[in-house]
Amino acid sequence: MKAPDAVRANPPVRLDSVTRGALPASRKVYVPGRLHPFVRVPMREIAQTPGRSADGRESIPNPPVTVYDTSGPYTDPAAIVDLRRGVGPIRAEWIHRRGDAAELSEVSSDYGRARLRDPGLDGVRFPNLRRPLRAKPGRRVTQMHYARKGIVTPEMEFVAIRENQRREEADGPQHPGQSWGADTPRVLTPEFVRDEVARGRAVIPVNLNHPEVEPMIVGRNFLVKINANLGNSAVASSIEEEVEKMVWAIRWGADTVMDLSTGRNIHETREWILRNSPVPIGTVPIYQALEKVDGRAEELTWDLFRDTLIEQAEQGVDYFTIHAGVRLRYIPLTARRVTGIVSRGGAILAKWCLAHHEENFLYSHFDELCEIMCAYDVTYSLGDGLRPGSIADANDEAQFAELETLGELTTIAWKHDVQTMIEGPGHVPMHLIQENMRRQLEVCREAPFYTLGPLTTDIAPGHDHLTSAIGAALIGWYGTALLCYVTPKEHLGLPDRNDVKEGVIAYKIAAHAADLAKGHPGAQARDNALSRARFEFRWEDQFHLGLDPEKARAFHDATLPQEGAKTAHFCSMCGPHFCSMKITEDVRAYAATRGLAPEKALDAGMREKSEEFREKAGGEIYMSV
Amino acid sequence: MKAPDAVRANPPVRLDSVTRGALPASRKVYVPGRLHPFVRVPMREIAQTPGRSADGRESIPNPPVTVYDTSGPYTDPAAIVDLRRGVGPIRAEWIHRRGDAAELSEVSSDYGRARLRDPGLDGVRFPNLRRPLRAKPGRRVTQMHYARKGIVTPEMEFVAIRENQRREEADGPQHPGQSWGADTPRVLTPEFVRDEVARGRAVIPVNLNHPEVEPMIVGRNFLVKINANLGNSAVASSIEEEVEKMVWAIRWGADTVMDLSTGRNIHETREWILRNSPVPIGTVPIYQALEKVDGRAEELTWDLFRDTLIEQAEQGVDYFTIHAGVRLRYIPLTARRVTGIVSRGGAILAKWCLAHHEENFLYSHFDELCEIMCAYDVTYSLGDGLRPGSIADANDEAQFAELETLGELTTIAWKHDVQTMIEGPGHVPMHLIQENMRRQLEVCREAPFYTLGPLTTDIAPGHDHLTSAIGAALIGWYGTALLCYVTPKEHLGLPDRNDVKEGVIAYKIAAHAADLAKGHPGAQARDNALSRARFEFRWEDQFHLGLDPEKARAFHDATLPQEGAKTAHFCSMCGPHFCSMKITEDVRAYAATRGLAPEKALDAGMREKSEEFREKAGGEIYMSV
Repeated sequence: MKAPDAVRANPPVRLDSVTRGALPASRKVYVPGRLHPFVRVPMREIAQTPGRSADGRESIPNPPVTVYDTSGPYTDPAAIVDLRRGVGPIRAEWIHRRGDAAELSEVSSDYGRARLRDPGLDGVRFPNLRRPLRAKPGRRVTQMHYARKGIVTPEMEFVAIRENQRREEADGPQHPGQSWGADTPRVLTPEFVRDEVARGRAVIPVNLNHPEVEPMIVGRNFLVKINANLGNSAVASSIEEEVEKMVWAIRWGADTVMDLSTGRNIHETREWILRNSPVPIGTVPIYQALEKVDGRAEELTWDLFRDTLIEQAEQGVDYFTIHAGVRLRYIPLTARRVTGIVSRGGAILAKWCLAHHEENFLYSHFDELCEIMCAYDVTYSLGDGLRPGSIADANDEAQFAELETLGELTTIAWKHDVQTMIEGPGHVPMHLIQENMRRQLEVCREAPFYTLGPLTTDIAPGHDHLTSAIGAALIGWYGTALLCYVTPKEHLGLPDRNDVKEGVIAYKIAAHAADLAKGHPGAQARDNALSRARFEFRWEDQFHLGLDPEKARAFHDATLPQEGAKTAHFCSMCGPHFCSMKITEDVRAYAATRGLAPEKALDAGMREKSEEFREKAGGEIYMSV
Repeated sequence: MKAPDAVRANPPVRLDSVTRGALPASRKVYVPGRLHPFVRVPMREIAQTPGRSADGRESIPNPPVTVYDTSGPYTDPAAIVDLRRGVGPIRAEWIHRRGDAAELSEVSSDYGRARLRDPGLDGVRFPNLRRPLRAKPGRRVTQMHYARKGIVTPEMEFVAIRENQRREEADGPQHPGQSWGADTPRVLTPEFVRDEVARGRAVIPVNLNHPEVEPMIVGRNFLVKINANLGNSAVASSIEEEVEKMVWAIRWGADTVMDLSTGRNIHETREWILRNSPVPIGTVPIYQALEKVDGRAEELTWDLFRDTLIEQAEQGVDYFTIHAGVRLRYIPLTARRVTGIVSRGGAILAKWCLAHHEENFLYSHFDELCEIMCAYDVTYSLGDGLRPGSIADANDEAQFAELETLGELTTIAWKHDVQTMIEGPGHVPMHLIQENMRRQLEVCREAPFYTLGPLTTDIAPGHDHLTSAIGAALIGWYGTALLCYVTPKEHLGLPDRNDVKEGVIAYKIAAHAADLAKGHPGAQARDNALSRARFEFRWEDQFHLGLDPEKARAFHDATLPQEGAKTAHFCSMCGPHFCSMKITEDVRAYAATRGLAPEKALDAGMREKSEEFREKAGGEIYMSV
């Protein structure tokens, strides 16, 4: 193992510039639990401006719209945020009450202890470390274990309330969806959540050592979620930037964040992120393991990897990508591919397997791995190390061979009560996407699918948030539960702040389009509210109800910056004469002047007229002229 | 009719800043016709850098990649472009030889004549006007007419060559697609094109008076095409900006352009655009007609509209959006919608119908309309005036009632040999998109479908290029032939140069994703080439082969600006140790050092190894450790 790098000087971490403040017209509300009254579920309530009565004289209030809120205390002006202390450990007491975990006197991993002892890291070390928790001997502390015992945990009630988004208050039309077998009740109950977790169809990624997390759920019968990848590399970026990127990503809607750091101080960076993150954090432990052997894959060992897992589990990582399906026998299947192996983890393990002519040590130690996951409630994200990296390689033998193994491993994980999701591709043309979903549901028996895109073409570097949002929307509709975002910088460079936002918004769109297509209960309420605001020229509401209020306002103001334009009953696109919405209003008003109720006017009056027309014209295509 | 606006001063048009020059590493090539040897079909050839042999010593050339090119002479450094003369009228001689059209001594429309007489417009008038052509009495001059007569026109051979993109030279793997009934031969022949045009399944929009157009085809058995909307409004923008936007839009791949101007001098703006456009230009004549009556829809008359049609047809507009399906009897069906009527044209006609309690005059004069279209070969784009403007209103009674009428009108248009396409929505959740396509194919008997998006959610103003690219990709896959782009400014403001580019690229992605999914012959060649370049770290080629070379390079350079980084075998995302492509290379090299051919090594050697493993381990999941 590589010695911690004590010699390099580490300047102190500065964390003063983190983004705070509510989104426009929004306030944070907390909905209390019933089973567990101490549960307080955060949501965002967007206020609307009043409308006008038909005669334009009366002001009619429009109800606020409640939306799912991933942003944590950063958007609550009442919350005190001190990055050096971390956000509030809301789950600490819930975990404590269960009585099945013990506080350790020190961290268990060799590496973790070495890092703590290293005075060269004082400047970058998170200053208020807690002692780690681990399951007491013989106990299982996973949400799946509790669910199977029939226990509805506070975490389960939390997600039930959260998923409902107070939708019982929302009304309005919604299309029945095409759910491809997903089956979501109109109102989600904690018991439903428990049942889904028990059968493995959903996961709640919540490590014992990440009490700060606001629980969320990943499963095909819940809202489609999105993940944002962050992480520094050997080449660029810093702790400060990564923490801010996390806060920034959840501000725009990231449900989970993966820390894929590969550069210096990744142990310490991860600690800062975890302590300040209200969303589950995932990692790919093999990246750090490889750092520890200076990039020489063949020097990796199970012991070193195991130490890395424990190190990260005791920091509080909620899910691990584990490439245990990259079996020795599958590697030759990639030799004739256009782009070989494009998963970093997959490539590292392939190299190891070839160097040793041995089976992947993650596969051969999978039972032991499960025991570690179970002791902290870390969720598996079984990695697709052989995913296709180009359209040409989509749905090939290597990819599906690995999927079969992931199915086998799911069964084993479930025997250990370890929560499990399955990673999926990658690059796939649209018509081959559904096969991925169909096979995954079958082979992995509905364990949640977590896909990267997929990108639906390879020809648009610089726009791969978009090539992949198309695939993500489709696979989300078909049943994928968690969509890993792709930013515009994919294949080209590290995402900056703007790229993170663009990636998150693109994936919020894909996830929501999928929810609408599945007919997820209440999903259409926000669309309806925004469309009504649009039709009634409530410009401010149109901005506020959208996913990106800042950009919407800036775009509007680019053409019509005057404040008056925001109450004008037209916009710059068509001008006053050509505004179809204005004309539709006129049509309604016109009908009203004929002495008819605004709604009935067209309906009754015009039906009559059209009957008359039909009679006169004999229903023919042409009237004589 | 409103008098031409002679009083306002019009500053002379400046057109010096139009974008010229080839795209990076690209050159224009012209492929000659065989049936018509004077036909020269422009294509873009993208050069690639050489690769390396397995031992790294030899340089192996990579062949250039030919792609479809919409950009006209602007990207040909050898072409002389004088915006005051317009681009070369390549079709003038073809039209002349047919001998079925006559040159008019002056323009036929009252409005056109009045504009010509107005000295106040001298500054903005295109300086080199031609006399208009019209079919000789009793003659039909449409491509559909020729096709039905069994004549393969130069236009048909042009598009056959163009669609092939020299794909007979491209090799490499391609997935069989799922074409939903589209049926494209491996190599397109002029005869196939003729047959498709004859049966109405494809259109070649080429007005007699737009000889500058490089013919292109719209139909489900051809490459999916995209349209970019431009146009000034009463509120903003100028002639100069609109011409440059057209040049800019075709540079990035717009196959057709609609001029939706509604402000001042729209007649003159249109002339400048047409004379300088190598792509078909579409308009919505009702917009200009409404301008002529100062925005008072109820004052519109058939005579005024007819004069407008002739005015525009004699300028050379290639296709007209005609909202003849907005029938009086359908208007009440929109009364309870969330967003009423959102098509400008639909709203104007609805207002007219209500004001007069009469049937839509476009519907009642449809035969006369066809005669005008036929005399100039203007293609119908039968407008969906009742398309849904929100998710809530998708696939409703009003929308499908209008579609039925568009089907009736298609039959009539075809009787007149008028080329016809059908416009479609709008805002539609993913699961309701295919129904639109299915019904359209049935009701309009495969007349090409031309859709606006559709947007798959309403909640992302500022990102509607993306919400709609998802829907566009899907409906393109299902069979839509022409996708009307949506820019990020949709619903908010007028697109600027950057928005036009973002909209075009988003739609190129959607169209190409659709081509891949349909299994369009040769569509995957560019993906394969780009992916090979990516895998081999040929960064320059990766930039050049993409849809947006400038952005790809800029993104790469944002993290690694050094020139050396463009030959580095890693990038900023993972750094050298973590690059999976690097590791895959190592895997192959490693195999090679074992004395095996680079490709066979893994395949043969590893199969053996894995067999050995299987025997030793008995095929069990676990080996004892």
